[in-house]
Amino acid sequence: MGAAKTNPGRFFEDYRLGEMIRHAVPRTVSGGERALYHALYPARHALYSSDEFARASGLPAAPIDDLAAFHVVFGKTVPDISLNAVANLGYAEGRWHLPVYPGDTLRSESEVIGLKQNSNGKSGVVYVRTRGLNQRDDVVMDYVRWVMVRKNDLDAPAPETVIPELQKVIPAEDLVIPEGLDFTRYDFDLAGEAHRWGDYAVGETIDHVDGVTIEEAEHMLATRLWQNTAKVHFDATFRPDGQRLIYGGHVISLARALSFNGLANAQMIVGLNGGAHANPCYAGLTVKAWSEVLDKAETAAPGVGAIRLRLVATSGGEAFTLKGEDGRYLPHVLLDLDYWALMPM
Amino acid sequence: MGAAKTNPGRFFEDYRLGEMIRHAVPRTVSGGERALYHALYPARHALYSSDEFARASGLPAAPIDDLAAFHVVFGKTVPDISLNAVANLGYAEGRWHLPVYPGDTLRSESEVIGLKQNSNGKSGVVYVRTRGLNQRDDVVMDYVRWVMVRKNDLDAPAPETVIPELQKVIPAEDLVIPEGLDFTRYDFDLAGEAHRWGDYAVGETIDHVDGVTIEEAEHMLATRLWQNTAKVHFDATFRPDGQRLIYGGHVISLARALSFNGLANAQMIVGLNGGAHANPCYAGLTVKAWSEVLDKAETAAPGVGAIRLRLVATSGGEAFTLKGEDGRYLPHVLLDLDYWALMPM
Amino acid sequence: MGAAKTNPGRFFEDYRLGEMIRHAVPRTVSGGERALYHALYPARHALYSSDEFARASGLPAAPIDDLAAFHVVFGKTVPDISLNAVANLGYAEGRWHLPVYPGDTLRSESEVIGLKQNSNGKSGVVYVRTRGLNQRDDVVMDYVRWVMVRKNDLDAPAPETVIPELQKVIPAEDLVIPEGLDFTRYDFDLAGEAHRWGDYAVGETIDHVDGVTIEEAEHMLATRLWQNTAKVHFDATFRPDGQRLIYGGHVISLARALSFNGLANAQMIVGLNGGAHANPCYAGLTVKAWSEVLDKAETAAPGVGAIRLRLVATSGGEAFTLKGEDGRYLPHVLLDLDYWALMPM
Repeated sequence: MGAAKTNPGRFFEDYRLGEMIRHAVPRTVSGGERALYHALYPARHALYSSDEFARASGLPAAPIDDLAAFHVVFGKTVPDISLNAVANLGYAEGRWHLPVYPGDTLRSESEVIGLKQNSNGKSGVVYVRTRGLNQRDDVVMDYVRWVMVRKNDLDAPAPETVIPELQKVIPAEDLVIPEGLDFTRYDFDLAGEAHRWGDYAVGETIDHVDGVTIEEAEHMLATRLWQNTAKVHFDATFRPDGQRLIYGGHVISLARALSFNGLANAQMIVGLNGGAHANPCYAGLTVKAWSEVLDKAETAAPGVGAIRLRLVATSGGEAFTLKGEDGRYLPHVLLDLDYWALMPM
Repeated sequence: MGAAKTNPGRFFEDYRLGEMIRHAVPRTVSGGERALYHALYPARHALYSSDEFARASGLPAAPIDDLAAFHVVFGKTVPDISLNAVANLGYAEGRWHLPVYPGDTLRSESEVIGLKQNSNGKSGVVYVRTRGLNQRDDVVMDYVRWVMVRKNDLDAPAPETVIPELQKVIPAEDLVIPEGLDFTRYDFDLAGEAHRWGDYAVGETIDHVDGVTIEEAEHMLATRLWQNTAKVHFDATFRPDGQRLIYGGHVISLARALSFNGLANAQMIVGLNGGAHANPCYAGLTVKAWSEVLDKAETAAPGVGAIRLRLVATSGGEAFTLKGEDGRYLPHVLLDLDYWALMPM
Repeated sequence: MGAAKTNPGRFFEDYRLGEMIRHAVPRTVSGGERALYHALYPARHALYSSDEFARASGLPAAPIDDLAAFHVVFGKTVPDISLNAVANLGYAEGRWHLPVYPGDTLRSESEVIGLKQNSNGKSGVVYVRTRGLNQRDDVVMDYVRWVMVRKNDLDAPAPETVIPELQKVIPAEDLVIPEGLDFTRYDFDLAGEAHRWGDYAVGETIDHVDGVTIEEAEHMLATRLWQNTAKVHFDATFRPDGQRLIYGGHVISLARALSFNGLANAQMIVGLNGGAHANPCYAGLTVKAWSEVLDKAETAAPGVGAIRLRLVATSGGEAFTLKGEDGRYLPHVLLDLDYWALMPM
């Protein structure tokens, strides 16, 4: 009887192409989220640390970290999209449209843009385009994500297969540069490194050197803060091995923060081209990161260049190793992320 | 010599009937406390997560969680009431009078309303009515609590026994509904569940399904945030077994947050009828929760119903089991709380 | 190739006498930092907990804890001063010039005021005077610190030896009393203890009684929040023993917070005369603290006295024991700090 009141999550057969899902629990962010983000990750990008630095860059104040905005938007989708997900398969076409500031209230909605039942008839792939909206109903970010979801009723008919066409990489000209952003008076001393956009070469790799050994309390604090409800992150009795699986977004934020050392001036994340959680992450692992410059582009904003980066998080192993001869990710690779950031030229 | 400067706490013989104790260390709360509350507990009730949702419900902004307000008020009483307490025996007549908003400053005061020396002459029961007040001296909440306190001077005479008459349950008509609260335009999508007041039946039970495995760092962060100074929560060398006992309020907040799944619309806590910390809680336990609907009542506020709930936190065992044949709480029961909440009708 | 982009830190031969180093990553503090400080440490000094208490003391609002301000200022210096430090040798002449309030943005700069190569030719001592500045370029605090730093190029010539003359103790008349501070209407009930400036005698010792067992997650959250990047605090694979060394400032804040019990009215820290991190601190240790009154002085501010305190943090052992017969710190002593605080007279 009580079970009827709790959320069983959605199963593959519960999704309809074109359906729009309004996700629950809007969230007002404040200086508290900003402080916690800096306590949870070794985040040092100056634009997100200092109101003064942000103002000198043409913004009204330091925004909440772009990945914090992503986590808030993403967390709301979990009860509707991934509660019964077997696997998080990919991301694409992620764009940040507006910085999020303390006082803003975020909510999320997702449109089902693709469905494909697996040949075993037991599960299927659901593609959604998720939008994060603020209190003025402006889109602050959107991204496509696809997950494999179990069927509950194996007799439910397979839907027509629709696989959306997705851009492998967002063209630089489609990136949204925050209004007013201006890096012509950029203070490299205060930012922490002298390397500007012109100092990075496509193909260049950077070992970020620093490492963080993860504690259970930390990833749970973070994952709760984003109101992500997946049992597997919190309940040590949920998996047979007694381990809590760390939210993939925690690894993304950790790796991005570590990348400060060598990419201190890759200030704003404006595009998410794709990403794979290559191997699961658990407490006790020591996470390190390396990056590769994949592309560069100019932008229309004064002094602002775009840089496309591969960000790889590892739990050991040699920097710059990624896949084995079989084409599979090596066991120590946790994350392979492809994103666009903005840098002073 | 130094010992004379530190607080030895009060002993049973130090309390006088009718005495009013002004507790130390007022506290201004901010968005920081709100963010931390959401990092420490899987809290998702929309009214406390979103300023916009709160405004649509007739409040000026999202208040600090009602239990956070309780913890702040409670924490201040510890040095004066429970530093030498042997046991926390009960709560009654807890009422929330005013929502607490970022920027408010809380302080606490307690009136001794009952005293009863135990027959062994070594301890006694102290009953206090504690009030939390804001910077305008408005009462934001009050509750009765009774604790067993050791005597220091065993020769001190026993006081006259006075046991206050306490309501077993606060009558629904005595609950204070926040001014302006209006659930007639309640957005069930954003709140996370479709079940309204009318959908719950007295006697209905709800298994909240989710679980959280507790870490030492988490309960200590929480307990410190409420400025609760009881040594037993922080010092692993204090107890012979080397375990830190978790503050009972941490279990209350954890269970309440877990109850979102099935009671997402039980938005505001307005009454605390009673509560028992049935068994001690330690780090490493996985806490789950279930609820039982004990009563329902209408209120004068538009669209607002009251629901009386039993909230049970467990560290395992079958949902809906509570006491053994001997009438005692089963070993896996951590908390048995009886409270009134407000729900959209 | 990538290594060229990351910060190798400075080596002894990289410092020049008189050189001014502008440290990176300014930081805006908010109510989030205040809340986190109270979650991380058992901080209860009323002036930092309550805007109302601060206003009644003549300040516009509750400042961020003085030690939090110190940690923010200090953290910024780590990448430039102590990344290759072998040892943190001492502090002197630390003065707080202005309270830091939510909304303030802090940055740091350090002047090299002394250099002395060690006789082994492999390292040297660097003396810096560090200033923390706010968004109006006002100095909020300054202090001298000296560290032993490795040489990278052993053939680099030794600089001329310059050892700055440093005050052993800041004269009371040089302490900066915050403008408007007035303790004549001080509420001792709300502050938590009745002992005023006149109640403390030079030579008096106070055992602060309470203890906190440290968790890895806690010291890492704190150290990250101050944007301190030293690998040794975060990466369990960095040291051969697999232990993470706890940031000395974490121990300072923990001990200071514990000293509330007996020194609740030692409200504001205005001077840091010196300090030694006597032994390393690791997670799992239970930290306790004791204090000794070293001196007392009157101030020009109404009702405000200055008290000079030795604050000792330990991981066990008898209170009030400090050094062995050989003059060395006993193994259980973690910290020996000498500071000035302001107290109601």
